[in-house]
Amino acid sequence: MKSHRYARRVLELKMPSEDSAEIISFGSGEAYPEGLPDMGDLAQKAASHYRRETMQYSAWLGLDDMREWIVEYVAHEGVKVDTDQVLVVNGAKQAIDLACRVFLEPGDVVAVTAPTYKSAVRIFRSHEANYLEVPLDEHGMDVPALAALLADRERRGQPMPKLVYDIPEFHNPTGITMSAQRRRELVALAERHQFMVMEDDPYRRIRFEGEAVPPIQAFDTGGHVIGIGTFAKLVAPGLRLGWVTAAPDVIEKLAVVKADGGSCPLTQRLIVEYVKAGRLSPHIQEVTGIYRGQRDVMLGAIRRYLPETTCRVPHGGYYIWLQLPERISGDDLAQAAIRRGVRVLPASDFYVTSGPANFVRLAFSYSSPSAITEGIRRLGDAFREIA
Amino acid sequence: MKSHRYARRVLELKMPSEDSAEIISFGSGEAYPEGLPDMGDLAQKAASHYRRETMQYSAWLGLDDMREWIVEYVAHEGVKVDTDQVLVVNGAKQAIDLACRVFLEPGDVVAVTAPTYKSAVRIFRSHEANYLEVPLDEHGMDVPALAALLADRERRGQPMPKLVYDIPEFHNPTGITMSAQRRRELVALAERHQFMVMEDDPYRRIRFEGEAVPPIQAFDTGGHVIGIGTFAKLVAPGLRLGWVTAAPDVIEKLAVVKADGGSCPLTQRLIVEYVKAGRLSPHIQEVTGIYRGQRDVMLGAIRRYLPETTCRVPHGGYYIWLQLPERISGDDLAQAAIRRGVRVLPASDFYVTSGPANFVRLAFSYSSPSAITEGIRRLGDAFREIA
Repeated sequence: MKSHRYARRVLELKMPSEDSAEIISFGSGEAYPEGLPDMGDLAQKAASHYRRETMQYSAWLGLDDMREWIVEYVAHEGVKVDTDQVLVVNGAKQAIDLACRVFLEPGDVVAVTAPTYKSAVRIFRSHEANYLEVPLDEHGMDVPALAALLADRERRGQPMPKLVYDIPEFHNPTGITMSAQRRRELVALAERHQFMVMEDDPYRRIRFEGEAVPPIQAFDTGGHVIGIGTFAKLVAPGLRLGWVTAAPDVIEKLAVVKADGGSCPLTQRLIVEYVKAGRLSPHIQEVTGIYRGQRDVMLGAIRRYLPETTCRVPHGGYYIWLQLPERISGDDLAQAAIRRGVRVLPASDFYVTSGPANFVRLAFSYSSPSAITEGIRRLGDAFREIA
Repeated sequence: MKSHRYARRVLELKMPSEDSAEIISFGSGEAYPEGLPDMGDLAQKAASHYRRETMQYSAWLGLDDMREWIVEYVAHEGVKVDTDQVLVVNGAKQAIDLACRVFLEPGDVVAVTAPTYKSAVRIFRSHEANYLEVPLDEHGMDVPALAALLADRERRGQPMPKLVYDIPEFHNPTGITMSAQRRRELVALAERHQFMVMEDDPYRRIRFEGEAVPPIQAFDTGGHVIGIGTFAKLVAPGLRLGWVTAAPDVIEKLAVVKADGGSCPLTQRLIVEYVKAGRLSPHIQEVTGIYRGQRDVMLGAIRRYLPETTCRVPHGGYYIWLQLPERISGDDLAQAAIRRGVRVLPASDFYVTSGPANFVRLAFSYSSPSAITEGIRRLGDAFREIA
């Protein structure tokens, strides 16, 4: 038994339920409960009318209707793929895990931004990856810095990364969007050093201001990008459905290690009926409005209760990456906060090795405006307790 | 890229749709379409009334209500576990895959019956396992033969298997049920050689005659059994839900590598409502009646159109393991059969190395009685063509 892989707290397995009545959660990126769609009528139709499809074993790559819709959807974002370049998966996490199984051997290198998405790091760890940490600035992952790191590794005869992982649009946890120029440079670097870019893009449609930048995959002509999409933020997390777009041979390899007999046809049909009924765009518009409002309430409360802190205003996504004075550790603040009934995630959760400790991530997605105000007030009290 | 793992035909990925109008399928173990439950009302309730649970992120181990029900259900079969010994998974195949990830390193040995379940073999292959093939007789896996093989390996200093995989109740493909005595012996052997038994038990409730034998796990006191259950055969394959019962530390390890963020709460709630509404037992009774009838029609047609063959009458499950005269290869018959519009699976699909070629597996689950009669008539013609 490979016990070294499992240095995890049992507690973590009980995550991510954040439903304690007393705790106000700015922790995990859960959906605002009032904004969850009521899909009852379509669930009935999917289970009953489409019974022979949705109750039976199904195609391993996903329902044809689902994959055809994904082709159209990503085309709208600038990514041109055929249906044989689409694999339906059980959420973005499964996509990351499958890509690791195909592209990583234990000890292989994955390049990630510092900080990066904590659940992705957990998955990389389970594959015993090594890391190359890349800084990021206001234009996203610092690709020129990555290029210099790789040139240096090349000179030293060190192995190149097999995968470069990023959330280029509304980066988790920092909220930064990578510039088009950087995306082009990253694709060129992938071409040169023959690594795969894993582009995790859950928040793209949750945009409050400004113009979207096309996905990294839109700049890719050599098949070096694994695009990962999810319905968790488009429709609802509970559906546990997402997709991968990649070169046909990559899709085939991912499908072979996706040994689960195909993703659930019932939830796939439910989503297909939802998008066909024209409900997706109004829903995204509604939740984007909700999240914009919640972001603004949180920013206002931070100005009032935490004037000692600073943050970049995120133009989309779910998170504020709050910078504390240098002497204050995010770990200490998170601990003081939970004692006062508010959950925040410390910077240390988002590094594969270590990085500046004086940050916490605040999710504004889950809590109501009044809870957000109260939660930030409590966080201010916690801050003053430890400052 | 680990290309050696992927010696798979693309075609196989398009499996297991068997819906061609012209082909009569005795291939994969799909449910009889007319027997699929209509869960429309409960799907509406799960999606709408339980919206905050079913549309949101959910507990990684599974819904509490689901796991509590599984505890009760397996207790009824003789397996005593607590809820912390239950993990909800996306079907039995995922359970097998997770167990391989936890217990196998490339090159480790898995013991299987010859023949055994082809999809399990595919998964073992993706983990680069080596095999120990164990014969089986009318009492199931020949555990005394396994004991002798292990004693021999011990003498030679060869590594013991890490996992022993079996489908003890209505074995796939042979339909044989392992005796209680053999189950006791297998648990004792696991204790002695410190391997894990992976007990895959999908067909238990699809019993036409006779008395069930308690699961292997019911004989286990040392935590050496990983019990795998599925709703695919209890309710419907399309729900893509199953479970694992095992020692708490094993469940924790499986949950850590199950990196998909938890199984779908919508389909879990749908099943919980289904069982709470008292619909499970009548449904099982109904489909068992259907499958018994289809088995009998198939046996009658075999007697009429394939008098040169023999088979054991399965007391449950989905399959007949048809023995051909020794000179006839199952591969040849399967090829001749598909040309005549009937799909059967040759013996070679069910061995990890090789075994007697003069068998084919016939699933009687999917096709209607009239299609079964016509399909066996065509198979008889194919047989005489090559005989």
